Amino acid sequence: MTIEKTMSPYAIRQAIRHGDFTGNTSGMAQGFVQCNLAILPADWAGDFLQFCQMNPKPCPIVGMSAKPGDFQLQALGQDIDIRTDIPKYRVFKDGQYVEEVTDISAQWRDDFVVFALGCSFSFEEALIADGLEVRNITEKVNVPMYRTNLACQTAGRFSGSMVVSMRPMKPADAIRAIQICSRFPSVHGAPVHFGSPEQIGIRDIHSPDYGDAVTIKEGEVPVFWACGVTPQVALEQAKPPVCITHSPGHMLITDLPNSRLAVL
Amino acid sequence: MTIEKTMSPYAIRQAIRHGDFTGNTSGMAQGFVQCNLAILPADWAGDFLQFCQMNPKPCPIVGMSAKPGDFQLQALGQDIDIRTDIPKYRVFKDGQYVEEVTDISAQWRDDFVVFALGCSFSFEEALIADGLEVRNITEKVNVPMYRTNLACQTAGRFSGSMVVSMRPMKPADAIRAIQICSRFPSVHGAPVHFGSPEQIGIRDIHSPDYGDAVTIKEGEVPVFWACGVTPQVALEQAKPPVCITHSPGHMLITDLPNSRLAVL
Repeated sequence: MTIEKTMSPYAIRQAIRHGDFTGNTSGMAQGFVQCNLAILPADWAGDFLQFCQMNPKPCPIVGMSAKPGDFQLQALGQDIDIRTDIPKYRVFKDGQYVEEVTDISAQWRDDFVVFALGCSFSFEEALIADGLEVRNITEKVNVPMYRTNLACQTAGRFSGSMVVSMRPMKPADAIRAIQICSRFPSVHGAPVHFGSPEQIGIRDIHSPDYGDAVTIKEGEVPVFWACGVTPQVALEQAKPPVCITHSPGHMLITDLPNSRLAVL
Repeated sequence: MTIEKTMSPYAIRQAIRHGDFTGNTSGMAQGFVQCNLAILPADWAGDFLQFCQMNPKPCPIVGMSAKPGDFQLQALGQDIDIRTDIPKYRVFKDGQYVEEVTDISAQWRDDFVVFALGCSFSFEEALIADGLEVRNITEKVNVPMYRTNLACQTAGRFSGSMVVSMRPMKPADAIRAIQICSRFPSVHGAPVHFGSPEQIGIRDIHSPDYGDAVTIKEGEVPVFWACGVTPQVALEQAKPPVCITHSPGHMLITDLPNSRLAVL
């Protein structure tokens, strides 16, 4: 079966469920919200929920299980099955990465709680629609991401520093990007910093901690957004006995139009 | 008669009209819109109106004469008389500054058209209310202003480069300032630039073309807003036979609450 980027979110999820697609979801189902995923046992979910609520810029909750064991997240789309509808998952035990799988039906537990968190794909689409260039898309690489010295608020067993993604822009474009992203608080919202990388603890802008380096042109400044890798770092530090996330770039594709996330 | 900063806009205008106050209006009638002023003969007003409409960031029109000869601008406040209610005026002939006066009743012509343009006092108040520091207010000086190489759109006989005002901020505060100012397009709106002064043709950030230099602290970047001095520069270049403006800092105080200018 061939996967077309223009297929509906439902059709793409069905293809993923049946093993017909296991790739990166960047650029697929344009116009629809894609989500980061974190799955935890119920006795860890309360702390994680509080961590997300106290750190809404890196960890914006778009949806979560109605109750422990719920793998459907009906509010996010038709017939979603979280156990099969993501192209690639990562399983962690005691904070350590164990394996990458394309189906977690075997690992599923009836005390699991699913968190779907906003992702930068939504705001990148809004930036491009407004005529701005998004360098990582132009250069066809993953966005560069960096650990910073910006501390997250601690909640129970979860703590850590913020991870940020970076997109270089001319200052006038950065101002426009701030306006556009302010409308979308549930997909990281406005940037958290621009300019000097050192000021937020980044030593070498050309060596990202995750993703790929991108070109920064003359007259451009690096602009930094809170990043959905932040909760993964907090999960690694908290070391819950088991935790499942999506594999970077392999997201949950929902039925929610991106415009539904706009507050204005 | 003593002028109190907390007097109503109407009471302050009356005091100005009767010659009891001829000073800078910064900080007076807090919460109410103050305006830049430009007065032109009717046969120049059409070009100037078009110039303002094509360059809304430096020249945001808050009000104008209902017809030539109208000196009341009723929409802006109770019993306004533009000929007497501004503390200090500047008279220009053929683009040359001629004199500063506190009353223009003698100069008034029945073909004069009045333009009231938005001023930075409104957005500075919004920034301070949000907990941000505005350096020129902290240091009790005029905001530094600079000629740039950002060209305005030409309209008839009016053209010129944009003048900007500068307030230094930490990047995170600058991002918040962009959000706040985006709500107020009729008082210059979001900044037009931040960071490198050279990029917009400013050679020495410590030597402003108008106003006073302010301290730029470690970790701060200069943030630049379109400035209401821009139309004065365009007026000087167009050289209308006669033109009257307010004297810098000596504004028209209106009855409009600042919040009424917010688009959201």
